[in-house]
Amino acid sequence: MEFTYSIRKATVKDAEDVISMIEELAEYENMLDQCKLTPEIFRKDGFGEDPAFHCIIAEAKTATGVVQTVGYALYYYIYSTFKGRNVYLEDVYVKKPYRKHGIGGDLMKTVAKIAIEKGCSQYRFACLGWNSGALDFYKSVGARDMTNIEDWHMLRFEKVELHDFASKLGKK
Amino acid sequence: MEFTYSIRKATVKDAEDVISMIEELAEYENMLDQCKLTPEIFRKDGFGEDPAFHCIIAEAKTATGVVQTVGYALYYYIYSTFKGRNVYLEDVYVKKPYRKHGIGGDLMKTVAKIAIEKGCSQYRFACLGWNSGALDFYKSVGARDMTNIEDWHMLRFEKVELHDFASKLGKK
Repeated sequence: MEFTYSIRKATVKDAEDVISMIEELAEYENMLDQCKLTPEIFRKDGFGEDPAFHCIIAEAKTATGVVQTVGYALYYYIYSTFKGRNVYLEDVYVKKPYRKHGIGGDLMKTVAKIAIEKGCSQYRFACLGWNSGALDFYKSVGARDMTNIEDWHMLRFEKVELHDFASKLGKK
Repeated sequence: MEFTYSIRKATVKDAEDVISMIEELAEYENMLDQCKLTPEIFRKDGFGEDPAFHCIIAEAKTATGVVQTVGYALYYYIYSTFKGRNVYLEDVYVKKPYRKHGIGGDLMKTVAKIAIEKGCSQYRFACLGWNSGALDFYKSVGARDMTNIEDWHMLRFEKVELHDFASKLGKK
C-alpha cells in the first residue's frame, strides 16, 4: 500500500479514532479487560481545563486521497527532582498495516521535539521485556534501559490496594 | 530520641529544607552529581502557575519543643489510557535519625489519600532493586512489582540523546 503521512495534535474530534487504537493496543498487550476509557472521558481529561495528557496523531493519505488516522502518541509532563520538568510517553501505537514506515519513530520524535520546546531534559517511557523488537529499536536510537542498567523496578498500587493503603494512615 | 510528627503540604518557605533532603537522597542513590535542583527552581516549578509537582513534608517535634523538617514526598498526576488520572510518587525520603517510626509510610499513605480525593485509581512509583528492604515493605502493603510480574522496563532518553533523537524527525 502506498501512502504519505503527517503528524498533528489531536483534537476532541479525534476521540473515537484514538480510543479505537487504545483498544487495539490493549488487546496487543493482553490487557483489553483493563481498558475503561470512553470517548467522553478522553475528551474531558485531555481537552478540558487543566488537561491530564496531550495527544498527537498520525494521518495517512493514500494515492486515491483517502485520509485515515493510523497512529497516536499520548504523553504528559512529569518532574524529576534531579532534572526538573520532563516528559513521559504513556503510549505510542501504529495500526498494523502502516507499520515499518517510520511512523512510530516519528510520533516519538515529535514528542521529543515538543518536550525540548517545553524545556524538558529527559524523556521517559516503559516497554514490556518480551517486546524485544521495540526494546532493540529504542536502544538503537539512544534510549537507556534503566531497568537493565540501574535495576529500577516499576511498582504500583491498584485501586483496592490503594484504598486499603490510604486507610492505614497513622497506623503502623 | 523521642518525638511526635505531623505531615502538611509544603510551601515556598520549605524550599531550602526540601532541597537539602533531595541532596541527601541523591547521595544515598549515588547520584548526587546528577542533582541540579536549586531552591529558586523548586519554588518556580512547584508553586507558580501550572505547578509541575506537589510536595508534602513531615515535621518532627521533640520533647523540648524543637520542630524540624525530617521527611518529604514529591508527587504529580499522570495518566493511564486504561485507568484515567493517576498519581506518581517521584520521591519519598526520611532523614536517617527519624526512620523506623512509620514516617515514610505515612508520607506515602498521605499521597494515597490525596490521590483518592483527586479521583485517581492507580498509584505508581519506582524502586531500585538493591533496596530490598524498601521493596519488601512496598509489597507488604499491597504494591505490585510490575517489573517482576509483567517484565516492564523503564527507559529514558537523557538530554544529549533526546536532542539527537528529536533532530531525526522525518528521517529513517
